[in-house]
Amino acid sequence: MNSEHLFDQIKLKQSFLCIGLDTEMIKLPGHLRDMNLPLFEFNRQIIDATHDLAIAYKPNLAFYECLGETGWHQLELTVNHIRERYPHIFIIADAKRGDIGNTSKKYAETFFQQLNFDAVTVAPYMGSDSVLPFLEYPGRWVIILAVTSNKGADDFQFLSSGNHERLFETILRKSAQWGNPGNIMYVVGATRASLLVKVRDIVPDHFLLIPGIGAQGGDLAEVAEYGMNSKCGLIVNSSRAIIYADSTERFALVAREKALETQLQMKNILRNKGLY
Amino acid sequence: MNSEHLFDQIKLKQSFLCIGLDTEMIKLPGHLRDMNLPLFEFNRQIIDATHDLAIAYKPNLAFYECLGETGWHQLELTVNHIRERYPHIFIIADAKRGDIGNTSKKYAETFFQQLNFDAVTVAPYMGSDSVLPFLEYPGRWVIILAVTSNKGADDFQFLSSGNHERLFETILRKSAQWGNPGNIMYVVGATRASLLVKVRDIVPDHFLLIPGIGAQGGDLAEVAEYGMNSKCGLIVNSSRAIIYADSTERFALVAREKALETQLQMKNILRNKGLY
Repeated sequence: MNSEHLFDQIKLKQSFLCIGLDTEMIKLPGHLRDMNLPLFEFNRQIIDATHDLAIAYKPNLAFYECLGETGWHQLELTVNHIRERYPHIFIIADAKRGDIGNTSKKYAETFFQQLNFDAVTVAPYMGSDSVLPFLEYPGRWVIILAVTSNKGADDFQFLSSGNHERLFETILRKSAQWGNPGNIMYVVGATRASLLVKVRDIVPDHFLLIPGIGAQGGDLAEVAEYGMNSKCGLIVNSSRAIIYADSTERFALVAREKALETQLQMKNILRNKGLY
Repeated sequence: MNSEHLFDQIKLKQSFLCIGLDTEMIKLPGHLRDMNLPLFEFNRQIIDATHDLAIAYKPNLAFYECLGETGWHQLELTVNHIRERYPHIFIIADAKRGDIGNTSKKYAETFFQQLNFDAVTVAPYMGSDSVLPFLEYPGRWVIILAVTSNKGADDFQFLSSGNHERLFETILRKSAQWGNPGNIMYVVGATRASLLVKVRDIVPDHFLLIPGIGAQGGDLAEVAEYGMNSKCGLIVNSSRAIIYADSTERFALVAREKALETQLQMKNILRNKGLY
């Protein structure tokens, strides 16, 4: 999916919402837990209930891998379900991979061929050859960790890296040269919205994946104020606040209500910015 | 496995060799490719032929994930085979994971419970909460990326990070405080042996996993000269140079010959250092 297509979907749905599928056995509604494929069944119902409000879904790989083969199988079923039923949805593998060239090539094969994802999150520490193999797939995306919103983000991301800039700024500046705004996006932690100004100085045209709305805190209006560009340029994720809003048989309906609340806020923001 | 046990194995086998299982369909001997579980069959024969010469095996996750469910299944069979037949072997998941706390917890569950690995490689960019969840498993290890030997290593790892030190040095210094030499190791690229002096200044007692011997270049004698400590403190990996040394039905025998060559060099080094 190219960036024009993504912007078209944002305008059509009046939404830049991504729903994170951090699907965990212990948090599933009780009536699903004894099913044969409980993670897939949960995801399927969430997706069917929210597909018109979200432009993207983002399975978090750790939650599937920890179940081994059956986890991997249910991840595959989830991606295939979206692909078959909702072909215009953008699907992100939140995998944070990053290795040397020949290994990164295998990870690209994993997420773009074996599984049919549109994008994969990648850790930048090992440099350009961690990223380049993913860029060899036309229409697919790499989403590079730039600034994150977790406690440990302060440990290294904000260190001075010379030339009066911090490490995350150097990462943005250098990595932007490895591809273009049509195949690279960045993860930017929403709880640090003031940083968005700095991020936009360096990468004005790239899409930013903002993971911090909802259970992790963060303010949608502030993110839009400082992070939005003329083609929206934002994909804002919410996971737990939507998918675990209810734990009864009504979970998918309540997830829809929560997604709708967020989508309505996004609609207002897009209208105020004159983007639809 | 604790560090004393690991050192005992090194002395017993007169080896600090780790064999990397970067097992790839396209590189398998022809007669294995039509088998039901070709990756596992290859690994099993390599392991059975080399288990007395190596102290560790290191499957590279990308090579299994790219086959989906069956890849994951064959990885599991490989780990179980080592566990059951050779209980004193150290097993490393080369996975380079790294995420926020609740996701890292799931990755720890994946590699230490779902799969029965002793250690997992982790990327440091997201900071302490990427690492801490792995340290909650007694007897298991996290192996943090410090300096790597790939082309892209220069992009960020050697940037000045203030206080007259480079990023990898800051990562070593800070992360060493999150655990101890009994639960943290570091990945240090062997092709930059002169850096080992600097690494040993900061982490004199930690084990270092050196990935660069063999196909990636690097010099065993230099690595030992500058990286070895009084309890060896080195695990040196070789992947392709051993496992793909031959592509006929004799592949396991030839792999053994190559492993033996390396083990004999290691034996000499350990003797010269007075370590056995």
